[in-house]
Amino acid sequence: MRNLDHIAVVGVTGYTGFELARILVRHPAVKASTFYMRDTQGAKCLDELFPQLRGRGDAPLQTFSAEAITASKAGVAFLATPHDVSTELVPALVEAGLRVVDLSGAFRFRSGETFSDWYKLPAAPEGLLSEAAYGVPEIYEQQIKDARIVANPGCYATSVILALRPLTDANWIAVGSSVICDCKSGASGAGKELRRDLQFVEVDDNFKAYNLFSHRHTPEILEHTGLDESQVVFTTHLLPISRGILSTIYVTLDASHSREGVEALYRKFYAGRSMVRIWRAGSLPELQHVAHTNFCDIGFALDKSGRRLVIVSCLDNLGKGAAGQAVQNFNHMLGIEEHTALQ
Amino acid sequence: MRNLDHIAVVGVTGYTGFELARILVRHPAVKASTFYMRDTQGAKCLDELFPQLRGRGDAPLQTFSAEAITASKAGVAFLATPHDVSTELVPALVEAGLRVVDLSGAFRFRSGETFSDWYKLPAAPEGLLSEAAYGVPEIYEQQIKDARIVANPGCYATSVILALRPLTDANWIAVGSSVICDCKSGASGAGKELRRDLQFVEVDDNFKAYNLFSHRHTPEILEHTGLDESQVVFTTHLLPISRGILSTIYVTLDASHSREGVEALYRKFYAGRSMVRIWRAGSLPELQHVAHTNFCDIGFALDKSGRRLVIVSCLDNLGKGAAGQAVQNFNHMLGIEEHTALQ
Amino acid sequence: MRNLDHIAVVGVTGYTGFELARILVRHPAVKASTFYMRDTQGAKCLDELFPQLRGRGDAPLQTFSAEAITASKAGVAFLATPHDVSTELVPALVEAGLRVVDLSGAFRFRSGETFSDWYKLPAAPEGLLSEAAYGVPEIYEQQIKDARIVANPGCYATSVILALRPLTDANWIAVGSSVICDCKSGASGAGKELRRDLQFVEVDDNFKAYNLFSHRHTPEILEHTGLDESQVVFTTHLLPISRGILSTIYVTLDASHSREGVEALYRKFYAGRSMVRIWRAGSLPELQHVAHTNFCDIGFALDKSGRRLVIVSCLDNLGKGAAGQAVQNFNHMLGIEEHTALQ
Amino acid sequence: MRNLDHIAVVGVTGYTGFELARILVRHPAVKASTFYMRDTQGAKCLDELFPQLRGRGDAPLQTFSAEAITASKAGVAFLATPHDVSTELVPALVEAGLRVVDLSGAFRFRSGETFSDWYKLPAAPEGLLSEAAYGVPEIYEQQIKDARIVANPGCYATSVILALRPLTDANWIAVGSSVICDCKSGASGAGKELRRDLQFVEVDDNFKAYNLFSHRHTPEILEHTGLDESQVVFTTHLLPISRGILSTIYVTLDASHSREGVEALYRKFYAGRSMVRIWRAGSLPELQHVAHTNFCDIGFALDKSGRRLVIVSCLDNLGKGAAGQAVQNFNHMLGIEEHTALQ
Repeated sequence: MRNLDHIAVVGVTGYTGFELARILVRHPAVKASTFYMRDTQGAKCLDELFPQLRGRGDAPLQTFSAEAITASKAGVAFLATPHDVSTELVPALVEAGLRVVDLSGAFRFRSGETFSDWYKLPAAPEGLLSEAAYGVPEIYEQQIKDARIVANPGCYATSVILALRPLTDANWIAVGSSVICDCKSGASGAGKELRRDLQFVEVDDNFKAYNLFSHRHTPEILEHTGLDESQVVFTTHLLPISRGILSTIYVTLDASHSREGVEALYRKFYAGRSMVRIWRAGSLPELQHVAHTNFCDIGFALDKSGRRLVIVSCLDNLGKGAAGQAVQNFNHMLGIEEHTALQ
Repeated sequence: MRNLDHIAVVGVTGYTGFELARILVRHPAVKASTFYMRDTQGAKCLDELFPQLRGRGDAPLQTFSAEAITASKAGVAFLATPHDVSTELVPALVEAGLRVVDLSGAFRFRSGETFSDWYKLPAAPEGLLSEAAYGVPEIYEQQIKDARIVANPGCYATSVILALRPLTDANWIAVGSSVICDCKSGASGAGKELRRDLQFVEVDDNFKAYNLFSHRHTPEILEHTGLDESQVVFTTHLLPISRGILSTIYVTLDASHSREGVEALYRKFYAGRSMVRIWRAGSLPELQHVAHTNFCDIGFALDKSGRRLVIVSCLDNLGKGAAGQAVQNFNHMLGIEEHTALQ
Repeated sequence: MRNLDHIAVVGVTGYTGFELARILVRHPAVKASTFYMRDTQGAKCLDELFPQLRGRGDAPLQTFSAEAITASKAGVAFLATPHDVSTELVPALVEAGLRVVDLSGAFRFRSGETFSDWYKLPAAPEGLLSEAAYGVPEIYEQQIKDARIVANPGCYATSVILALRPLTDANWIAVGSSVICDCKSGASGAGKELRRDLQFVEVDDNFKAYNLFSHRHTPEILEHTGLDESQVVFTTHLLPISRGILSTIYVTLDASHSREGVEALYRKFYAGRSMVRIWRAGSLPELQHVAHTNFCDIGFALDKSGRRLVIVSCLDNLGKGAAGQAVQNFNHMLGIEEHTALQ
Repeated sequence: MRNLDHIAVVGVTGYTGFELARILVRHPAVKASTFYMRDTQGAKCLDELFPQLRGRGDAPLQTFSAEAITASKAGVAFLATPHDVSTELVPALVEAGLRVVDLSGAFRFRSGETFSDWYKLPAAPEGLLSEAAYGVPEIYEQQIKDARIVANPGCYATSVILALRPLTDANWIAVGSSVICDCKSGASGAGKELRRDLQFVEVDDNFKAYNLFSHRHTPEILEHTGLDESQVVFTTHLLPISRGILSTIYVTLDASHSREGVEALYRKFYAGRSMVRIWRAGSLPELQHVAHTNFCDIGFALDKSGRRLVIVSCLDNLGKGAAGQAVQNFNHMLGIEEHTALQ
C-alpha cells in the first residue's frame, strides 16, 4: 500500500531539483521523503552534497533507478529529470501505483507529435499523454486532484497562460489580432548544463533575445489559451539575474474597456486563489515582489482608447514557474491547502 | 572670432556629462576645452572631482554661467543640462555666435506645444525650435552639418528610430498595423538624480516595466518615423545593469518578404555608415556587443509567413544614446570622420 | 497585563524593518502584532505599502508614538529605529512594562561614553545600558532570556564575534599578535537612506573599501572578544550584491595546532546550536549558502605551520546580522525553540 | 628580416586573448597583425567570430601552428596560450628570431622547479627561464626593453607587487611581521574554461574565498617582493563582477610613519610613471576607477600609531593585470610611449 505522504524526489542535481528539495525537506504533510540522483558521489544524505541544507534535517539520498523507487512505499514521485528520462520512467512508476508530478516537457502535450516536433525526441505513449493533467491549478484543479500524472508546465508558459486566460475565456481579444508576448527570464531558467553562454562573464552586464519563433514553450501557450499560432509572437530574453520571469504581453481588445472592467475580469477569474495576485489598475508588479516566492503577480496598463492592453506578469521561474508549482500541484493531490510549505 | 575646435562642455555632473568629458578629453581635433558645472566645489580641474580621469590631461573646470561661456573663444557648446536650463541658455549662446549640441529634450520638437505637453515646462522660442536639427546623423546629416542647434535625441528614441526608419521610408509596414516597441534600459539612462527606486538594492536582482503609455520619448519616435500615435505602443523597462538599451520591436509587414530582402533593405539604408552595424539574418546583437561603444547594432528575425518581423536594436545609452552621438554630431559639424574619438 | 505573544514592531520603512515584518507576519507563536512607522501615508495595513506582503495576512499599520505602543497590550517591542529614536523610546517602553529588542546601536555598550564617542550622539541612561543584554544568543543566552532590553548586535560585529569567540575563550590567539578582520558586505547593510554612493550605478560592477580604522562596529568587536584595540584591524568593503557579509579573519595561534583540533574547538563551542554551522576543515562557506537564512556559517584554513589560521564567516546581514537574530533573541525571551520562524 | 611592428597574436579564444585583440587592432604603431587560434571554425577574419569587433578593421585569422608564425615576418609574438603550450612554443619562436610576450605562467620563474611545483607541469629550459624578463615595466623596464622573452605577470601578483614594492625596497616593513594580502577578483580572471563554479547562477549574488594557502601567484609575489613565505598570507576571493581586482594589504611598519611620509614614498617610487596612480592620503581607489583601463590605482590608510598600514591596490585584471600590461611591455620593446593604445 502506497502512502501519498511518502515521496520520492528524482533528479536533485539541477536548479529545479534543488529548489524542490529545499521546499520539500520542510513540507509539514510529508512523512517520509527519499531523494534520488544519478551520481550520489558516495553521499548518503542530501546535505553532504548541498551544505546549505545542513541543519534542515538529514534527508536520505540514493542512486536513482526505477526499481529503487517502485520498491519503496512512496505514493508520489516528483521528477526533475531530462525529458527523455521522464518519458521512460513515468510508465513504470504509474504501473507500480505511484502518482507522478513531472517537471520535464514529456507529458505537457496531448499529442505525441507536438512533443516530438518541438523536442526532437520520441514521445510517451498516447494513452498516458492524454490522461496527464496540465499542472496549472488555477485552471485545471479538478483534473490535478485525481491525476495519476501531472505535467508541470514550462516557466514561461505559466507566466503567459495565467496572464492571458482570463481574456481568452471571456473572448475579449479582438479576433485575429496579434498577441505579442515579450518575455524575460533569469539565468536559472536555462538549467544547470555547462554552456559557454551561461558562464558568468557572458551573462553579467548583458541582455539578449534568443530562440525567436522557435521556443519550446510556444505549443503550451497555444494549447492552453486557444490562440492561433499565426496570432501569437512569443519572444524570450535572458536577464542578468538568477531568478525570475517578467512577461510583457500586448493585446488588442475586441472593444473599448475601462481599467475597472479589466481589473474586475482578472479579480473574478482568480477569486479565492492564494497564489495569483492581481495588482490594482495603474500599478505594476516587479520581479523583486515575487523572487523566492510561489506567487504569480499580474498587473496591466490600458491606453486611453481602452483597446490596447499591456499585461505584466511576474513569477519566480524556480517557484511558481517550476518547483513551487509542482508542490502546489502535490498539495491539491493530497487535498490540503494549496499554499502549504509555499509561504 | 570663434573657433570650432574650442569647445565648452556644460554640466559634467551627471552620467551623460561625465561620459562626454571622458570622450572629449582625448578628442584629437579639439584644441581647447573648458568644462563647466554649477558647483565646482573649489576644484579647478576635472580630475579633482573625477579621479578616474587622472592621467588624461588637466581639463580646466569653471563655474557655469552664460557670461563665462560667451566670453570665451569657444565655437561649440555641448549642453548636458536639465531641459529648462537648456531652454534658457541656448538662445544666449546662439546669439553670441556659438553652435550648440544640446543633450536635453528642449530642442527635440518642432512644436513648442509638443514639448510643453510632454515635459510640463515652457518651450524655447518657435524660431529656434524649427531651425534645430534632430541629431541622428545617419538620417539628418545635411541639416546637422550646418545647424546652429543640434538637438541630441533621446536614448530610447535613437534605438527605435534607427530600427524602424528603413521600414517606414520603404513603406513596408502594413497600414494601420500595430508597431510594438518593447524597450529595456540600464539604470544610467535614468540619470544621477537621487531617487529611492534607483538605489542599488531596489534595482539589483530586479526588473520592471515603467511609464507605460506615458514615456517622453514617444513623440520623438512618432515624429521621426511618421507612424501614427494610435499605431505605436512604446514600453520601457529597467534592467539591473548600468549601461545599454535593447529594443525588441514587433512589426507586421505589408506583404511577405524574405530574410535576404529584409537584410538588404537595412544594409542599403545604412550603406557607408560607420556607427550602425547590421547583423546577418538569423543572428542577433546583444548588449555586450555595444557596451562602451558608439555603435547601434541591429538584427532581426522573420517568421515563416514572411510578414511578422521582430527587430532587435542595441546601443549603449551613454554612447550612441547620448554622449557618443553628441560627439558624432560634433564631428559632422567640424566636417571630419564621424567616428573620430569614438573608437 | 502585557502578553509576550503580542508584539509591536516599530520602524518598518528600512530594509531591516521590512525583513523583520516579513519574518514576523508568519511567526507561529505571535498572536497579535502591530506595525508602526512614522509616516503611514494613510495606509492601514502593511501590504498597502509593501505589495510583496499581500497574501500573507493583513497586519495592521499605525503611526508611531510611544503612547500608542504603551497603550496596547504588546509585551515585546522590536525597534528598527535610528539610534537617537531608540535612546529616547526605550526608557518609556521599559517603564510601561514592555520588553524591548532594539536593533539600533543605542544599547550595545555598557559605557555611554563609548556610544557617544563612536556615534556622536547622547547616550541612554547608564542604568539601562548596563542591564541590556548583548543579543548574540550563542554566547549570552541566559542574559537574553530574562532581559528587559536586548541590544541586537551590528551585522559585521556578529560575523566577527562568532568567528573569534571560540579562540579567545580558549586563549588560542598569540599574545599581542595582529587580528585582521577583512569584512565585505552587500549594500542593504548600509540602510535605505538616499545616498549618492548607494545608487545602483555607483555600486554595480564596483567594489571598494570604506571607513578604515573608523567603523562603528569596532567597539562591539573589542568588547565581546576581549581583544585589545591595538591588536585588531577591522576593515569593511562594499560588495555589489544586496545581501550578505563574508568576513575573512587572519589570526596567529599561540602554538601549532592541527586542523582537527581547530575544527573540534569550534564544534564544541557551538555544540547544540542550531543557527551556527561549522564547516569541515578544508571546506569554506560562501555567501550563497546563507543568503535569505538565519545561519552563520564558519569555515577555516590552516597553513602547514599550524599557526596561521584564516577563518571565513558568512551570514545574511538582514538575517543573522539583524532581523533574523532579533527574532532568535525574541524566541529565547519566549522560551521557545530558537529557530522558530527562522527556517 | 623580422619587423617589430608586425605582430602575431596567438590564442584569442579566451578573455585575455580577446582583450589583447581588442587593444591591438587599433594600436597605431602596429603595421601588420595576424591572429591565431586553434580552431578558427572556418573564419578568415577576427570579426567573423567576434561580431563586436566589426567596424574595427578586418584582422586576418589563421589556424595556429609554430610553422605558420615563424614563416611570417612577425617580429613579436603575444602568447595568450595555456602554460604547457607556451613552454613548447616559445623556444621555437625565439629560435626563429621572434621576441615574445608570454601571458601564461610558463616563464615567470627563474627556477623551473618552482614552476613545476606550483603548476604540476614540465618547465621550459632553464636557460630561457633565466633570460626572461618579468614584465612589470614600473620595476623592470630596462630588462624588458631588450628581452627576447617577457613573462607577463599574474593579475593578482601585479596588484600586490606594485603595492608592496615601494615598502620592501625602502625596508619599511617590520622584520618578521605578517603581510596579509586579502585579494578579490572578478570572474574573468578565472578564464573562459567551462566550469560549474563559473556559471552565472553560481557567481551572481555570491562571494567566496578560494585557494587558501595554495594560489599559484604566491611564488611571484615572494620572488618580486623579497618577502619570506612564512611572512606572507595571500588569500583570493571571487567577486560577482566581470572585471577588476582589489587587493587590501595589511602591513606593520618598522617604525611610526606619517601619512605624508607614506604618500611621499609611493609618489617618489612611481614618479614619471603614467600607468600607476597614487591616491592622496585618506582617499581610496575603487574598482570603478580602473575598469576598462590600464591603470593600477593605489591608496592607503594609516592608523593613529603610524605603524599599521592598510594599502588598497586596484586594477582591471584584463587590463593592467593581463592584456594591457602585455601591450605596455610591447611598447617598451618598441621604444615608444608606454601608454600607447592604452588610453
